Amino acid sequence: MTVNFKVVTRMMVILLLVLGVSLIPSLLVALIYKEYECIKAFAIVIALCLIIGAGTFRRLGASVIKIKNRDGFLVVALCWLVASFVGCLPFFLSGAIPDLVEAFFESASGFTTTGSTILTEIEGLPRSILFWRSFTHWLGGMGVIVLIMAIFSSLGVSGQVIASAETPGPTLDKLTAKFSDTAMNLYLLYILFTAVEVVLLCLGGLNLYDALVHSFGTVGTGGFSSYNASIAQFTSPYVQWVIFAFMVMCGINFNLYFVLQKRGIRAMLRDVELKFYLILIAVVGLLIFMNLMQTETYTNTMKCIRDAYFQVAAIITTTGYATADFDLWPTFSKMLLFLLMLTGACSSSTGGGVKIIRIIVCLKLVKRGISLKIHPNRVVPVRVGGKEVSQEVATGISNFVFMYIFVVFAGSLLIAFDGHDLVTTITSVMTCVGNIGPGFNLVGPSCNFHFLSGFSKFVLSLLMIAGRLEIFTFIMLFSPHYWNSNKI
Amino acid sequence: MTVNFKVVTRMMVILLLVLGVSLIPSLLVALIYKEYECIKAFAIVIALCLIIGAGTFRRLGASVIKIKNRDGFLVVALCWLVASFVGCLPFFLSGAIPDLVEAFFESASGFTTTGSTILTEIEGLPRSILFWRSFTHWLGGMGVIVLIMAIFSSLGVSGQVIASAETPGPTLDKLTAKFSDTAMNLYLLYILFTAVEVVLLCLGGLNLYDALVHSFGTVGTGGFSSYNASIAQFTSPYVQWVIFAFMVMCGINFNLYFVLQKRGIRAMLRDVELKFYLILIAVVGLLIFMNLMQTETYTNTMKCIRDAYFQVAAIITTTGYATADFDLWPTFSKMLLFLLMLTGACSSSTGGGVKIIRIIVCLKLVKRGISLKIHPNRVVPVRVGGKEVSQEVATGISNFVFMYIFVVFAGSLLIAFDGHDLVTTITSVMTCVGNIGPGFNLVGPSCNFHFLSGFSKFVLSLLMIAGRLEIFTFIMLFSPHYWNSNKI
Repeated sequence: MTVNFKVVTRMMVILLLVLGVSLIPSLLVALIYKEYECIKAFAIVIALCLIIGAGTFRRLGASVIKIKNRDGFLVVALCWLVASFVGCLPFFLSGAIPDLVEAFFESASGFTTTGSTILTEIEGLPRSILFWRSFTHWLGGMGVIVLIMAIFSSLGVSGQVIASAETPGPTLDKLTAKFSDTAMNLYLLYILFTAVEVVLLCLGGLNLYDALVHSFGTVGTGGFSSYNASIAQFTSPYVQWVIFAFMVMCGINFNLYFVLQKRGIRAMLRDVELKFYLILIAVVGLLIFMNLMQTETYTNTMKCIRDAYFQVAAIITTTGYATADFDLWPTFSKMLLFLLMLTGACSSSTGGGVKIIRIIVCLKLVKRGISLKIHPNRVVPVRVGGKEVSQEVATGISNFVFMYIFVVFAGSLLIAFDGHDLVTTITSVMTCVGNIGPGFNLVGPSCNFHFLSGFSKFVLSLLMIAGRLEIFTFIMLFSPHYWNSNKI
Repeated sequence: MTVNFKVVTRMMVILLLVLGVSLIPSLLVALIYKEYECIKAFAIVIALCLIIGAGTFRRLGASVIKIKNRDGFLVVALCWLVASFVGCLPFFLSGAIPDLVEAFFESASGFTTTGSTILTEIEGLPRSILFWRSFTHWLGGMGVIVLIMAIFSSLGVSGQVIASAETPGPTLDKLTAKFSDTAMNLYLLYILFTAVEVVLLCLGGLNLYDALVHSFGTVGTGGFSSYNASIAQFTSPYVQWVIFAFMVMCGINFNLYFVLQKRGIRAMLRDVELKFYLILIAVVGLLIFMNLMQTETYTNTMKCIRDAYFQVAAIITTTGYATADFDLWPTFSKMLLFLLMLTGACSSSTGGGVKIIRIIVCLKLVKRGISLKIHPNRVVPVRVGGKEVSQEVATGISNFVFMYIFVVFAGSLLIAFDGHDLVTTITSVMTCVGNIGPGFNLVGPSCNFHFLSGFSKFVLSLLMIAGRLEIFTFIMLFSPHYWNSNKI
C-alpha cells in the first residue's frame, strides 16, 4: 500500500485549474487600474496554470478515482503548498515582492488565512496585487470548508469529527442527505456572508474595492488589509462594529447556521462550544475594557469598549485585524490576548488555533481527573452538552493539544536562531501556527515579519500550513510510518 | 464522609514537633556566630513549636489512626503551608526579612525546594538565618521523599505511581518488604548524598558552613546560596563540577539507586526515564555550548562547557543555581532552558516540573496518535520501557499536563496585574510552579523577586506549594467535590 501518485497528480491538476480561474478577478482589477506590470504577471500565471492543468488533465483521463485516506493527507498538504507557491508568483513576477521566500510567506499567510505580512509599506503596492493578496484569504477560507466537509470528515481528523461527536443536536449528516449538497450550502452561506458584509461596508462609506478586500479578510478570518493601519484606517465606529460582527460570525461552527435556519436561535444557542465562545468574548472583552480604563490612554469610553472587543474578536477568531496597537496595552490585557491566541475559534469555522471545543473537553477531563482522585471508584464519563465523550475522542483531543504545544516549541527553537527576544520568538510561532496574524513585541500589530531571516520566514510559512491542516496532517508527512507501509 | 479534623490536627501537631527540633541546628549556628537577635528568634519559635506541639499531642492521646485518602490530601497541603508559615517566623522575628509576606515567600521557596528569593543583598544577612534558609531546602527534600513514599504512593497521585506503572525492573514493593524500611533507606541515601557532597566541597576549599549550605541546596534541588553570585562565587571548576554532579544525581529517581545497589549499573541504566534524562542533559548542554561559542562572550572553551552544562543541570533538576547569567545568553540557548523549565527532573526525585516520564508518555501518545490516523484499524498500545501504559495512567498523565498548563496560565494572569513584561510574568510563574528558582528578564538569575507586589509574592508562594504537591493535591482543596461528599 504505497502512495498513489496518479491520484495525487490528478488532484494537483484540478487545483491548478481552480487557481488559474481564481486569478482572473485580480487580472480584471489590474486591467481596471491599468497596472501593466501586474497585468503581465497575472496573465503569465493564469496561462501557466490553465495550460499545464488542462494538458495534464487530458492526459490523465477523466475516470473517477476514489481517494484513500493515505493519499488524502498528502493531497491536502500539497494543496496548500502548491497553492501558496502558485499564489506567490504574481507577487514575485510583478516585482511587488522581489524576494521569493517573502512572496511565498505572504501567499502562504493568505491561503492559510493567517494574515501575517512581510510588507512594511502596504499602501504603495499595486491595487491588483493587494486584491489578490486578500483574495487568497477568501480562497483559503473556502478551502478550509472543503477540508471540513470532505477530506477531514472522512479521515476523522478535524473539528467536524469533534463536532459530530460532541455538539448536541443535529450533526452534519442529519442536516443534508448528501455531502455535495452540504458543501454547496456552506459555499452559498460563505458567499452570502461576504456579499452582505460588502454591502454593509459600502453603506458605511467604503468604496467597493476596500469593502471587497476587507470582507475577504474578515470572512476568511484572514486579516490582510490594504492599509498600513489595518482597520484603524476606518475611524467610523459603524465600520469597525460591522467587521467585529462578521469576525465573530465567521468564528462560529458553520453547521450551526443550518441549525439556526431549521430550528431557530434557541437550538443554535444550545451548542456548548458556541456558548463558551460567546461568553469568552463577552467576559475577556469586559476585563480588557476595565483594565484599559485604568490606564490613561483612553478618555473616550465608547472607543475603549470598541477597541477592547474588536481586539478580542480579532484574536479569538484568528483574524488578526487591529484597531489599536495592543502591544502597548497593560500586561494583564496582553496576557489575556496571549491566551486567546491559543484557544482560537470554534470547530468547523474558518478560524484557526486549538479550537474552543478542544479546550472545553480538556477542562472537563481535568475536572473528571480531580473527581477521580477523591472518589477513585466512581467512574464518571466526561459529558459535553449532554453527550458522552468517548475515550477515543478524548485521547484524540489530548494528542492534538500535545502536538500543538510540541509544534509551537519546536518552531520557537528554530526561530530562536534569529536571536530576537523570547516574546517575539514564541509569539511569532504561535500567531503563525494559530493562523492569527500579529504577535507581540517585534511582530506586534504595528510591525511586520520583514526583519526575520529567510530561514525563519520559510519555517513560519510551513508552520502556517501545519496549523491550517490541524497539525496532524502535516506532521504525518514527516513520519516514516506514512511512507513505509510495513511499519506501523 | 467528611474531613476528619482530629486526624488532620494530629498530623499538624507532629509537624510542629518536627519543625521545633529541626530549628535547633540553626539555633546552634546562631550561638556559634553570636547572633543575638537570631538566638532570640530561633528560641521563641522552637519554644512555641514544642510547647504547642507537645501540649496538643498529649491531649489528643497516642492511639494510632489510619489516614484516609481525603484527609491525606488536606494533611499534605497543610504540611507545606504550616511549615512555610512556621519557617518564616525566624526570618521575620529576627528582623532579617521585616515584611511578613516576603518572609513567607522565602520560607515557602525553601520548603518547596524552589530557591526563588526576595533578597537583594544576601551576604549581609546573619549566618544562622542563611543556614536556616538553606536547611528548609533540605527538610523540604526530605518531605518530598515522605510524600513519594508514603502519602502519594498510597493515593496514587505521584511519580511513584507512574514509576511503578512504567519503569521496567523492580518496583518499590519488591525492593524492600516494608514501607518504613524503604523510607528509612531513602533517608539514609539522602543523608549519605549530603554528607559526601559536604566532604567533597570541603576538599575543594570551602569552609564547613558554605559546604553545608550548598549541599542542602543541591541535594534538595533547592538553589539557595549564601552568596549574591550563587555558585559563580566559587571560581574553582572542581567545586562547580561537584555541585553539577550532585544536582544531576538528585534529579534521578531515588529508587533507582537501590536498583544500582542490588543489580548494578546496567540494570539502572535500562530505566527509560533515566536514559532520556541523561541524553537530554548531554544533548542540550552540547547545543548550548555550541551556541555560546558562536558569541564572543566565551574565550575559554572549558569555562564555556562548564557554564553550559551547569545551567542545563541547574534548570532541568529544578535546582536553580547559577554560574553564569543565562538571561544574557543568545535566544536559542534561552529557548532551550525555557523548555527545560517545563520538563523538570525524573519522577521520585527531589526535583520539580512536569517530570521526564510524563513527557515521554506524552510523546509516545502523540506518536501512537499519528500511527492511528494512518492505520485506523491497528490498535497499538503505548509502551514505555517494554511495559504497556494503561489507559488510566495515560489519562492521568494527560490530565496532569493540562492542569499544569492551566495553573501556569491562571497564575500568569494574576501576576500580570503587576504590569511587568510578558517574559517576566510567565517565567516567574513557571519557575515557581516548577520549583526551579530563577526565570528570565526581571526574575533572571542575577535578579530577585523583591520588586513584585505583595499580592504577587503571595500568589507565587502558593504556586510553589501547588507545584511541589504535583498540582492535583493543591487544586483539589479548592474543589467543591472535596468538601461536599454528596457531589461527585
